[in-house]
Amino acid sequence: MSTIAIVGATGAVGQEMLECLDQRNFHFEKLVLLASARSAGKTIQFQGKELIIEELTKDSFQGIDIALFSAGGGISREFAPIAAAAGAVVIDNSSAFRMDADVPLIVPEINGELAKSTPRNIIANPNCTTIVSLMALAPLHRAFGLKAVIASSYQAVSGSGAQGIIELDEQAHAYAKGEPITPRIYSKQIFSNAIPLIGNVTENGYTDEEMKLTKEGAKILGMDSLKASITCVRVPVMRSHSVTMTAQFERPASVDAARAAIEAFDGVQVMDDPQNGVFPSPLDVTNGDDCMVGRIRPSLVLENALDLWVVGDQVRKGAALNAVQIAELLV
Amino acid sequence: MSTIAIVGATGAVGQEMLECLDQRNFHFEKLVLLASARSAGKTIQFQGKELIIEELTKDSFQGIDIALFSAGGGISREFAPIAAAAGAVVIDNSSAFRMDADVPLIVPEINGELAKSTPRNIIANPNCTTIVSLMALAPLHRAFGLKAVIASSYQAVSGSGAQGIIELDEQAHAYAKGEPITPRIYSKQIFSNAIPLIGNVTENGYTDEEMKLTKEGAKILGMDSLKASITCVRVPVMRSHSVTMTAQFERPASVDAARAAIEAFDGVQVMDDPQNGVFPSPLDVTNGDDCMVGRIRPSLVLENALDLWVVGDQVRKGAALNAVQIAELLV
Repeated sequence: MSTIAIVGATGAVGQEMLECLDQRNFHFEKLVLLASARSAGKTIQFQGKELIIEELTKDSFQGIDIALFSAGGGISREFAPIAAAAGAVVIDNSSAFRMDADVPLIVPEINGELAKSTPRNIIANPNCTTIVSLMALAPLHRAFGLKAVIASSYQAVSGSGAQGIIELDEQAHAYAKGEPITPRIYSKQIFSNAIPLIGNVTENGYTDEEMKLTKEGAKILGMDSLKASITCVRVPVMRSHSVTMTAQFERPASVDAARAAIEAFDGVQVMDDPQNGVFPSPLDVTNGDDCMVGRIRPSLVLENALDLWVVGDQVRKGAALNAVQIAELLV
Repeated sequence: MSTIAIVGATGAVGQEMLECLDQRNFHFEKLVLLASARSAGKTIQFQGKELIIEELTKDSFQGIDIALFSAGGGISREFAPIAAAAGAVVIDNSSAFRMDADVPLIVPEINGELAKSTPRNIIANPNCTTIVSLMALAPLHRAFGLKAVIASSYQAVSGSGAQGIIELDEQAHAYAKGEPITPRIYSKQIFSNAIPLIGNVTENGYTDEEMKLTKEGAKILGMDSLKASITCVRVPVMRSHSVTMTAQFERPASVDAARAAIEAFDGVQVMDDPQNGVFPSPLDVTNGDDCMVGRIRPSLVLENALDLWVVGDQVRKGAALNAVQIAELLV
């Protein structure tokens, strides 16, 4: 029986972590909810009890076994080492430590065995689009040997946190009332639009968000490097990400063998009979645990390659659920 | 001075054709508006005059010089040959004749010279996603020699006609009122969702909509064949299509040379300074004539290849404007 802390308990992911702990009957002795001074003192109902949110300080982690962080990179960089030094294993949802060599980057179904060795007491939770993409790619990599990926994302506003959801909600209401729409957190209107720029542009013209598939993808799959290009696009969808991929393999990959490989993998399902209208959409996976894959067909361009479409709940498998699954590996 | 007929004058594209004729000061002697018996007798205001919609019959085309068709493939298959036999040049927005060898398939900026020879008196207007994609690809093909394209689309509901726009509008209103959302023309909810299936599935697993880029693309670019894979996805955007592409070329293609080639081409603009927040979104091109290209960067996967993003108004350059531009080549 462990003592658990959630840092960023009032955020969209923090709230979903509570949901996941509850739904999965995660056994713990004590649950400590931490947030900024602004939220401290507020209460959250959880399993019939009223939990009071405490202010995050450097003394918050005494006696904590597992600390789930989801309060942004700055908070993680400052407080994760403090929590780790106090003896907690940190599961960090930010990008702060993901590429550090001595920090395992874990998707439990893919490389959960790495949770056994945490030299710095920190485990990183991968980027949400990377997790969703890899839930389709990992079984195919094992079956056929992944060579390269060309992808495009359809990312939900939940990826920007609660503020993203509020922004799309407000803009949909403004549209329905015939009122003018003014973007706040996004640089352009997101309702009835698509924004092909997520994150900061790096030297090669790709954004840091786009480079996560390349860098985190290679680390999670245990490859020295991964040839991957993605264009990350924000779309007016509340909370599930979709990704189109052309995945090229070392060995021939038939559609049937690909479906079988995905079906046999935990945490991902095949939903692929388009002639009968069967394909997954973001709403089909919203509030669900599993990612879903459809539209699997041979690439018309690359050899030994498949085109496909994968969807996953961004808040859940893309963040909170994956973190809670990592916590389950520790107890 | 010509006599013009519009078949499908009450549809979303028919209405936009009227807009384009007006805005571009298209000179004509007489304008005949044709539609189904259901719409016959209704009036449309145009350039200060009241035009009465006439019922489309086999006798509608006497004395017509140019007939713009946008009433679906069935109407085109039945009435385009009748109009052509009556002496009109048909510009057909449906897919009925696009791949016929003796029917030119025209994007005026790319292959407008083909309008000079119309053996069957029929010219086909290409698929909307194909037009938008090719407005970026054609200048790059001329500069570097196109070899292959891997693409994903973000297609607006206007591509389903007026009913698509009504469906997203109704669902946005229902969402704002907290009412249940029931899909009508789409198989799943489109508000806050993405639907990765447009058109009918063909033998190779791609839809007929997806194969249009491959087939129509090759014909318009004058290539024997085009290696192209696209996943076509409907997104909750009102009326502009976006496409991500990885385009591979015969010869090295630098980002600067690509930008210069696109800038020098009519009908398409570069909007590409993402570090300063400059990139095109669907709303940026809505109600505009030009397509816009951004996020141009070297592919991280394929050699001599660029990743990019192109947007274009589906109703306008994707349909009505392109048809009116073809008409301009005929007078």
